[in-house]
Amino acid sequence: MTTQTYLDSAIRQFLANADTRSVTVATAHMHPADLAHALDTLEAGDIARVLAALPVETAARTLGYLDEDLQSETAEALPRKTLGRLLAAMSHDERADLFALLEDATRQALLPVLAKADREDIRKLAAYEEGTAGSVMTSDYAVLAPDMTTTEAIARLRKEAPNKETIYDAYVVDDKRRLVGVVSLRDLITGDDDAKVSEIMKSQVISIRADAPREDAARAIARYDLLALPVTNGGEALVGIITADDAMDVAADEATEDFFRAGGVQGVIGHRGEPDGASITSVRKAGIWVLYRLRIVWLVLLVFGNIFSGAGIAYFEDTIMAYVALVFFLPLLIDSGGNAGSQAATLMVRGLAVGDVKLTDWGHMIGREVAVALMLGLTMAVAVSMVGAFRAPEVVPVVAMSMVCIVLVGSTIGMSLPFLLSRLKLDPAAASAPLITSIADAAGVIIYFSIATAVLDLGPPA
Amino acid sequence: MTTQTYLDSAIRQFLANADTRSVTVATAHMHPADLAHALDTLEAGDIARVLAALPVETAARTLGYLDEDLQSETAEALPRKTLGRLLAAMSHDERADLFALLEDATRQALLPVLAKADREDIRKLAAYEEGTAGSVMTSDYAVLAPDMTTTEAIARLRKEAPNKETIYDAYVVDDKRRLVGVVSLRDLITGDDDAKVSEIMKSQVISIRADAPREDAARAIARYDLLALPVTNGGEALVGIITADDAMDVAADEATEDFFRAGGVQGVIGHRGEPDGASITSVRKAGIWVLYRLRIVWLVLLVFGNIFSGAGIAYFEDTIMAYVALVFFLPLLIDSGGNAGSQAATLMVRGLAVGDVKLTDWGHMIGREVAVALMLGLTMAVAVSMVGAFRAPEVVPVVAMSMVCIVLVGSTIGMSLPFLLSRLKLDPAAASAPLITSIADAAGVIIYFSIATAVLDLGPPA
Repeated sequence: MTTQTYLDSAIRQFLANADTRSVTVATAHMHPADLAHALDTLEAGDIARVLAALPVETAARTLGYLDEDLQSETAEALPRKTLGRLLAAMSHDERADLFALLEDATRQALLPVLAKADREDIRKLAAYEEGTAGSVMTSDYAVLAPDMTTTEAIARLRKEAPNKETIYDAYVVDDKRRLVGVVSLRDLITGDDDAKVSEIMKSQVISIRADAPREDAARAIARYDLLALPVTNGGEALVGIITADDAMDVAADEATEDFFRAGGVQGVIGHRGEPDGASITSVRKAGIWVLYRLRIVWLVLLVFGNIFSGAGIAYFEDTIMAYVALVFFLPLLIDSGGNAGSQAATLMVRGLAVGDVKLTDWGHMIGREVAVALMLGLTMAVAVSMVGAFRAPEVVPVVAMSMVCIVLVGSTIGMSLPFLLSRLKLDPAAASAPLITSIADAAGVIIYFSIATAVLDLGPPA
Repeated sequence: MTTQTYLDSAIRQFLANADTRSVTVATAHMHPADLAHALDTLEAGDIARVLAALPVETAARTLGYLDEDLQSETAEALPRKTLGRLLAAMSHDERADLFALLEDATRQALLPVLAKADREDIRKLAAYEEGTAGSVMTSDYAVLAPDMTTTEAIARLRKEAPNKETIYDAYVVDDKRRLVGVVSLRDLITGDDDAKVSEIMKSQVISIRADAPREDAARAIARYDLLALPVTNGGEALVGIITADDAMDVAADEATEDFFRAGGVQGVIGHRGEPDGASITSVRKAGIWVLYRLRIVWLVLLVFGNIFSGAGIAYFEDTIMAYVALVFFLPLLIDSGGNAGSQAATLMVRGLAVGDVKLTDWGHMIGREVAVALMLGLTMAVAVSMVGAFRAPEVVPVVAMSMVCIVLVGSTIGMSLPFLLSRLKLDPAAASAPLITSIADAAGVIIYFSIATAVLDLGPPA
């Protein structure tokens, strides 16, 4: 915390009187992530002034750690030449992401400032669709030829080290740039000096296609404990790599998205949002209007969904008038269906997301769900009978029977909905609490009052 | 998929007639993670037979990839000597975790089989409390002395490479094993041959104490894009490292736990469960009884929570008898409070979990929440007025007013609860949908019927 205070005061001093020395000294041993965090509260123009005063390497890395919105605003506030230098020093994937966020005029102005190779690289990386493996890969990886000796290979990696995202896994390509193997620096330095790369490389390379979903890449990196995952195009040529730290970010973003969806909050988190969806990178900094848009959709859908449960209740008006005590238990019963359903959906959504559960597992899991739901429903029926015995003993049998049926129906719907959505190529996490609540409401009302009408011997409503 | 089929048939053949060659050939180029996946459906005894037939390195890594339950069952089924050899070859953290799961008799029988250093190492790693950084660290890391030259350092790493989890980051310690720096293999191979380690190392090392929560370690690794994070004891001596791949697993487990909690599913996921909690490692394979225990707590609490909303409704019985149409909108109104509250809680729980939101942010965020909730409530009031105008125009003004109040109250509770839980040192994710539903129910009933009683001019209920 003292480091933070010291840094904050050095930054304030620099902004007040352009004292470059104090800010350079204060940031010298600082991790760019911490520096970005310290700059986070400033205006983009001030951040740009600080970055312009720092060594290019530090400034480039710090810029990459800023929030997406702040990153583009800061870039727009930098002098074109400085921005060009920072872009040249940024890691290739961050640079392409930032470039995509800049205004057209800025991009045009940058073209003469950037080297041709950098321009080409940015164009290529930006071409991959959002959400694909290609969109999160980087092009600054190390390649080797199969006929190099380990000594030659190490010399090559040593030379290229400053410009590569990682040199710990190097990719072996043939003359058509097809991926034929992967070799770790560990294996290179422990191997014989004269051994050929082709002899010590692993030729069974785990790779992914550029058009695969980015979460598949993150899952492969987690599953196989990789430092980086090579990305190929349709023709099996190597086009990039996804590093483990980017995979961690992807996994965190995907978990956040699923978490939000399950809670009935729509929207895209982290990187560039889908054009027609609200997007936030920080809950803390999100504006009122964005939060409104993230939440209103499900809430209003629920209102219209209520047409069904409202109509159900209206249909049973006579039953309610005859036994108004039935209404005491209405909130509990419909909530129980919704809650049991949400629980079942929660388990399935996460199981499907982490790859533990497959679409084909539905058949054998539905039987288990019915058994669990029956046990849950019976336990809750006992609990509600204890509560209800004091207040309205005459309706307790109806409430208990309804509880078992409603929990069973809610659980079955909650468990099956993520599978159904997944089969329809939709996100299973869209089986959110509000959606299940809405369905369980209508089902609960009909089950409850139907049982009541039958058991309390009222005859069918007029 | 053909690889999978080929492997499955080789395994079946081996189990049928002990054809060791076919299974060795089939697994030769297989990643241990895939091999573990293929073995996953077999009995522990059969898995033990397959592992015993494989090279020790492959068998040890495959064992480490199995689910926790299957891992311990398989270990118990292995001959003691084979198990001892596998333990010696496993990574230190996986070995300590497995050892903790074995039966006492097995542990006693293993002691003479294990080398003294391995026994000591297992004992030390097992001593850290579950959920701490210490519990997920490993002890097979590389250390260097500050006065070594880069050439000596590389030679040392080369020699130690086969027994270390990673050699890409090496930790520099003084003669009291205090952490004084970190140096990457990249910097070593690009540095001058005669440079001292102390000259090229980074002396500002990001580290964590062994007793810190494991999710803090995962967060630091993600934030600073580290390959590994060194772990120190109270006296700042280096005691282990946490690798990025283990951090990814921790982050995934924590996300799953939060996801489940928010959905009203209690329990611990992944590694050894807390002694008194249900624990599952796979949704797909979880038993009926475990699933029942994970879900029943919230559901029964909700039943008892209903005493309040039920009593509220009973109190307003006269109002309901006078205007039974009020009941049509009861499910919608109480659900709206619960859903708006769940949304607000979802945003805060995830914000707190990823470190975006701090406890101290509550003050400035409550104002924003009120503004958003008012906008949401007004929109929903308009929507419900459109629906209600056809069915029960006489109660529409009451329903619309109630909607605004209920959404406001639900949102404020949902947003504040995670902060309150966090302040009480509880998991903010315990602000689950069922808890908020239960609170919102009671609040919704009281708000709705109070407004109805006042507006519809019925006078206070008798």
